[in-house]
Amino acid sequence: MKIGILGYGNLGKGIECAVQQNDDIELTAVFTRRDPSSVKTATGVPVYSVDDAIKMKDDIDVMILCGGSATDLPVQTPEYAKYFNVIDSFDTHARIPEHFANVDASAKEGGKIGIISVGWDPGMFSLNRLYANAILPDGKDYTFWGKGVSQGHSDAIRRIDGVKDAKQYTIPVEAALEAVRGGSDPDLTTREKHIRECFVVAEEGADKERIEREIKTMPNYFSDYDTTVHFISEEELKANHSGIPHGGFVIRSGKTGLDGEHRHIIEYSLKLDSNPEFTSSVLIAYARAAYRLNKEGQTGCKTVFDIAPAYLCKESGDYLRSHML
Amino acid sequence: MKIGILGYGNLGKGIECAVQQNDDIELTAVFTRRDPSSVKTATGVPVYSVDDAIKMKDDIDVMILCGGSATDLPVQTPEYAKYFNVIDSFDTHARIPEHFANVDASAKEGGKIGIISVGWDPGMFSLNRLYANAILPDGKDYTFWGKGVSQGHSDAIRRIDGVKDAKQYTIPVEAALEAVRGGSDPDLTTREKHIRECFVVAEEGADKERIEREIKTMPNYFSDYDTTVHFISEEELKANHSGIPHGGFVIRSGKTGLDGEHRHIIEYSLKLDSNPEFTSSVLIAYARAAYRLNKEGQTGCKTVFDIAPAYLCKESGDYLRSHML
Repeated sequence: MKIGILGYGNLGKGIECAVQQNDDIELTAVFTRRDPSSVKTATGVPVYSVDDAIKMKDDIDVMILCGGSATDLPVQTPEYAKYFNVIDSFDTHARIPEHFANVDASAKEGGKIGIISVGWDPGMFSLNRLYANAILPDGKDYTFWGKGVSQGHSDAIRRIDGVKDAKQYTIPVEAALEAVRGGSDPDLTTREKHIRECFVVAEEGADKERIEREIKTMPNYFSDYDTTVHFISEEELKANHSGIPHGGFVIRSGKTGLDGEHRHIIEYSLKLDSNPEFTSSVLIAYARAAYRLNKEGQTGCKTVFDIAPAYLCKESGDYLRSHML
Repeated sequence: MKIGILGYGNLGKGIECAVQQNDDIELTAVFTRRDPSSVKTATGVPVYSVDDAIKMKDDIDVMILCGGSATDLPVQTPEYAKYFNVIDSFDTHARIPEHFANVDASAKEGGKIGIISVGWDPGMFSLNRLYANAILPDGKDYTFWGKGVSQGHSDAIRRIDGVKDAKQYTIPVEAALEAVRGGSDPDLTTREKHIRECFVVAEEGADKERIEREIKTMPNYFSDYDTTVHFISEEELKANHSGIPHGGFVIRSGKTGLDGEHRHIIEYSLKLDSNPEFTSSVLIAYARAAYRLNKEGQTGCKTVFDIAPAYLCKESGDYLRSHML
């Protein structure tokens, strides 16, 4: 199975690594909007201009779209679904129905499969919400994120006057997690669920008090949270905060019995050293599914909800039943 | 959707409760091998002799088989799959391939769907092993069970001379769980993973030292574990140990990156007040899937690996995408 990568950022590089771990998958090409001669891949895979992608439609079984959800994927996924089986990690939850409809129309027109919103949230977290809701209809859902780096919040800090660089960690509140696991079904405010910890490199002579105040009072991003701000040196930021860890918890607490007398807790959690590499690993598994579904004659847009789990594995049904069931 | 229950033990009663929580599902009948007039259902559902089941094949969309894996299900599931869509919780891991083949042949002959080995292990735990393996091919799997009641181990203690009643809890070793979560990929012996705690009611005048020794040295069941034995009164057993809790943990620890430099931990856990009621809740969700798949014209044997998650939910694809993705 031959795949292509469109967009060689953190996610594209993660796909390149993930391919090494899957011997049924081969990486044929990377496509970039930059000058291809300026991009060197880690494993020597050839790089082409995005303008040449469609010409290579017969050489690639699945194209993995590694652009951003704000402006890239809403255009790219429907466009390329006319020519390729495609996978994306579209993560603007509110716009998923619209994106689904667009990709569905294109993919059906092209006789291809498009799987959207693949990764961990949306993705594995969504799957766990669905399974847990199907099993325990009388219950309550909780999702916690972190400990991990929020790119959006880090960017918001960097836009403040006098800030040279910054990294923001989202951290679940341990007491809230414990209350949920204890089965008390608490109603939790935004502030009770997560705290925000910021590591900031200030420009020389900048007013740190003002920066800290601007961070802590920033609407939407920080004002609803307990936020701590640490000013550190550029060297310290580089040495201790250059990773992209993330993770989180999906918990459903539900009741069964004639009078709801029995309590059950279903918990799924991820602890990830590298957010983009883990997301890439999920994308690769679903690329395998896209390829197979299309070979069976299926077309149109799918999500993780529509894919039978066995399609993600290279092993046969016999093997899976005897080794994993 | 109309369901039938074959076998009115703990699992059958759990199904009866679970039906109450699903307004698209109706419980039509309970079938028993006992004298039907001797069985009173909790919600007043009519009880028939198992001999009358096949006559009612047009009144029931899915038959849920609630017998045991040792002798009931290997016969019942293939037999009833000729007449009904069926679901079972067959849990003898080593015999799953053979059971699958038998049910597949019957279900195809009858034009029905049979979903086998549904529950939490096999079932939800299997699904989580599969997803985690598909995502992180370079990694290691761990399954821990408990804290929970093992029926098999409790029965083994009850067979010892001088024992009136007993309850055995399987308990994961916290230090082992922490080592796995820490990403050190430990090799764990049986003894290092679980401990066994036994609550025993001895007959009057029985030799407790001998009973304790017989428990602790019992091959397969206890000799490979650190086992503690508590002698308690019949009243205490009834008051504090009459529940059927269970649960456990499925953890995969894996690496990504060009040189495996990033570590990821995927963990799924269950904490269940009632093992049979939770299992029943899973069975009901898959009964819904069986009914739909058969309506689409599919036949044969399936497992949880073969069922796209959306089939478990009564809600539409549109609803699931906008609310759970």
